[in-house]
Amino acid sequence: MYTFFFRLFCLTAPKRFGILARLMKANDYEVTMDALVSLCKRRGFIFQTSEIYGGINGFWDYGPLGVEMKRNIKACWWKSMTQLREDIVGLDSSIIMHPKVWEASGHVGNFKDPMLDCRETKGRYRADQIFVLKHKTDAEALMFAFHEEVSAPAEKKVQKVAKGNPEDYEQVALLDIPLETYSKLVGPDTNEPGTLTEPRAFNLMFKTYVGPVEESSNVAYLRPETAQGIFAQFGNVCSTVRNKVPFGIAQIGKAFRNEINPRNYTFRSREFEQMELEFFIKPGTDAEQHEYWVTERLKWYEKVGLPEGRMHRDIHEGDALAHYASACTDIMYDFPFGTQELEGIAARGNFDLTQHQNTAGKKLEYHDPDTNETYIPHVIEPSAGVDRIALALLCEAYREEWINKETGEVVTAEAGANRAPEGHEARTVLRFSPCIAPYKVAVLPLVKNKEPLVEKAREVYGMLSRRWKTFYDQTGAVGRRYRRQDEIGTPLCVTVDFETIEQDNCVTVRDRDTMEQVRMPIAELEAYISNIVDF
Amino acid sequence: MYTFFFRLFCLTAPKRFGILARLMKANDYEVTMDALVSLCKRRGFIFQTSEIYGGINGFWDYGPLGVEMKRNIKACWWKSMTQLREDIVGLDSSIIMHPKVWEASGHVGNFKDPMLDCRETKGRYRADQIFVLKHKTDAEALMFAFHEEVSAPAEKKVQKVAKGNPEDYEQVALLDIPLETYSKLVGPDTNEPGTLTEPRAFNLMFKTYVGPVEESSNVAYLRPETAQGIFAQFGNVCSTVRNKVPFGIAQIGKAFRNEINPRNYTFRSREFEQMELEFFIKPGTDAEQHEYWVTERLKWYEKVGLPEGRMHRDIHEGDALAHYASACTDIMYDFPFGTQELEGIAARGNFDLTQHQNTAGKKLEYHDPDTNETYIPHVIEPSAGVDRIALALLCEAYREEWINKETGEVVTAEAGANRAPEGHEARTVLRFSPCIAPYKVAVLPLVKNKEPLVEKAREVYGMLSRRWKTFYDQTGAVGRRYRRQDEIGTPLCVTVDFETIEQDNCVTVRDRDTMEQVRMPIAELEAYISNIVDF
Repeated sequence: MYTFFFRLFCLTAPKRFGILARLMKANDYEVTMDALVSLCKRRGFIFQTSEIYGGINGFWDYGPLGVEMKRNIKACWWKSMTQLREDIVGLDSSIIMHPKVWEASGHVGNFKDPMLDCRETKGRYRADQIFVLKHKTDAEALMFAFHEEVSAPAEKKVQKVAKGNPEDYEQVALLDIPLETYSKLVGPDTNEPGTLTEPRAFNLMFKTYVGPVEESSNVAYLRPETAQGIFAQFGNVCSTVRNKVPFGIAQIGKAFRNEINPRNYTFRSREFEQMELEFFIKPGTDAEQHEYWVTERLKWYEKVGLPEGRMHRDIHEGDALAHYASACTDIMYDFPFGTQELEGIAARGNFDLTQHQNTAGKKLEYHDPDTNETYIPHVIEPSAGVDRIALALLCEAYREEWINKETGEVVTAEAGANRAPEGHEARTVLRFSPCIAPYKVAVLPLVKNKEPLVEKAREVYGMLSRRWKTFYDQTGAVGRRYRRQDEIGTPLCVTVDFETIEQDNCVTVRDRDTMEQVRMPIAELEAYISNIVDF
Repeated sequence: MYTFFFRLFCLTAPKRFGILARLMKANDYEVTMDALVSLCKRRGFIFQTSEIYGGINGFWDYGPLGVEMKRNIKACWWKSMTQLREDIVGLDSSIIMHPKVWEASGHVGNFKDPMLDCRETKGRYRADQIFVLKHKTDAEALMFAFHEEVSAPAEKKVQKVAKGNPEDYEQVALLDIPLETYSKLVGPDTNEPGTLTEPRAFNLMFKTYVGPVEESSNVAYLRPETAQGIFAQFGNVCSTVRNKVPFGIAQIGKAFRNEINPRNYTFRSREFEQMELEFFIKPGTDAEQHEYWVTERLKWYEKVGLPEGRMHRDIHEGDALAHYASACTDIMYDFPFGTQELEGIAARGNFDLTQHQNTAGKKLEYHDPDTNETYIPHVIEPSAGVDRIALALLCEAYREEWINKETGEVVTAEAGANRAPEGHEARTVLRFSPCIAPYKVAVLPLVKNKEPLVEKAREVYGMLSRRWKTFYDQTGAVGRRYRRQDEIGTPLCVTVDFETIEQDNCVTVRDRDTMEQVRMPIAELEAYISNIVDF
């Protein structure tokens, strides 16, 4: 946080406090996924992959605005990890690695979901996401399976199909039902019992063959996480950098999981991007380092625009903790579809390095030059999903607002209201943290048919676009151009008007959130903008 | 080039001309691949993927320095395409797309190499890279197959195995030999005839299955190029941005080709990264737009450090041109292993959009609001390989030099010489263009045991690392620290000495290439560095 506070507190005018306060304020607008998905497609944030061919389930493309936003998220992470710290270096390992990597990591053996099919509907379900309503006393009665949650529709089905009383039924997990009773199970999407298969294990890694022959010796996998690429190169990295433990290796890259049920828009997809850090530590410092990284990462989330109020820690304990892990905390965000994980921060001991050392038969140890000790370091792994963070930032930023035409007062629009009340104007705005916004600034000449004015605006655009992604727009009324920029989250609009060229060589800078305008000399513009938008 | 020249000519002192001149000067040092590969591993640019498991052929990882260098290449391209121009927007489409994309593009049907095996050695060859020495008159004589080039070893083999005179043999392409004569063919790595199989077509796309069942309806491919993701989203992008033709869509991302013979280090690998632009134009402007982009791209290469002297245009004509293309120029670089392609710039007409329009049954047209014409745009496609550019930049930057200890004069080391001549010191230096260098600047306190001096150095480091990737090094003699930075290509070293803290608050800035030092106030440092290193 040092840089951020330094900037805000030392370099800027007191009015800049406003931006920080607004970012930290909990979002009081509850966006619906329908509204968000529609904006994302309409303005070019996110498209369905291969939409012209009907799409492909679990894959998404980022449009002109989405790609810039995603690049900003990754740049903020990479800068905070590898540029602002001396104890972390970067790595870029390949997506396809030697298959033994995944044997050592346990993914070939264990990275499986239990899955079952409906013979009638051809539907496919993750067994651990299916719940069953079971008659409390009558062992012979039908049982009803439901996907995800047993709720109102479930009760209706019990009343309709079994003509029973829902209160006579109790909820159990499908995986707790003995297989021999499956013949009495009514599937989630059917009305007749006996259509569900037994659950079977399904490995979530995408498989392919390297080389022209499809034989077992040529099998390779698309990595289901970037982390193992770091462990596999631990030895090489140690011998090329001089960092002492504790030190980290950071990586950003694509990963692939053949999810049975991709869902919640881009949240659970089959192709996604990860930002993973392996922070190698001295055994015994696990608890303090784990807590340090949970705190660090929450600070980072606040900095990019996810405020404390909607972030939660889900602390894994007991059975929820892998046998080798001493701690694991998920960082969760309140999405419209529920509170879900953005990042997992695990204290994994020396499990991964030990596995690779044993499988490869090569030492993966660290020699401490100060104490002369040799050991396999333990590791803290903050592992974040870029697409999930992008989705959370979009949810957090999205607002519909009503602006009082007389007073300029802004109120949050009522959910579901079709139009602004009398005397108000509606606007949709993405209140991104400036470091995340696709465009940092827009340059708007007041009119487009006055040559010296346009020329000056182009000059300002030329100056700013060398440093930042800058929008140039001369079409339509200025008010409408402001709204266009609001809707794509551009934090600042610079307007060049007649006074600029005739009198003061100043421009008007309009703030997206407060809609306030300040006038300043063109010469001061770069410093002012840098102050606000640079991470 | 505007920005670059603007910076150099307007903002900087005359001595800065030196850097430009050095960049433009043809590299007079001939690096060997052995020396380069060794440096890349030793300093952490490039590692073999999964090296601890014996590696996997055709896959490479980028270490701490390599990942920064590759990020810089991509950032320079992205900035030049999407930030410094208003007529290009970005896109990030997924690696796995709907399989119909690859039917439409022709990759399912045509993206194949003819391949043959040696039954004895189990070697596998691309048939179009195999040449044959065939007896000029005696149809019954043995024929000798060679990989890539028929040269001196070929003649020896003819003399040894056939006990013949090489001059009685003539060179033909393997694919011109009738199959029934294969029994007389001596394979490239054998001495007995009849071990080679017939050539068969081998599709170069990696195949996988989406969803749990491995059946033909679930087949999907890893994209062999990023370009088709752009064509598939042409309609969505057009409806979200207001750009008029000519305009472009740019994309950077991984692509995969199941090459039969990956080779030449990272040059031909199975997993690689592309930077592709599809620039949509009005039909009829193809020739001028193609020439424009060839020129633009050559300027870009010069800007990032590949001088004209080692760059070539390979203009495709006649059979070398795809049936739908009106022009194609490869941009080639003189690698130590030969002159090879970095980028292909093709005028592809409306082939791709037409194919997708016909396959998907959806219009992919552009309506010109000014002329009211509707048409399928033509396209110019500059398609570059990030890994190849990285390799070319490493080859170009690598020098071994001898420095006269008395005069400071620098001469290029003689190839193959083990040590510098009497009175000279040797150095290895990566003369990267500053925009490509992994670290932009290093901060070196003169000594490490004088607290106020170290404190000042840390302060300078703190200031610079907020803007640039900065190295901090206080270990060893300053001369040795300079050499370390030379070897990883850091353009500038800032030394904090006793005068800094006791007298003038100035630091010494040492130039990697000239090894000259200038002294300047700390307050002027940021502007000075920005001038030199920012793209």
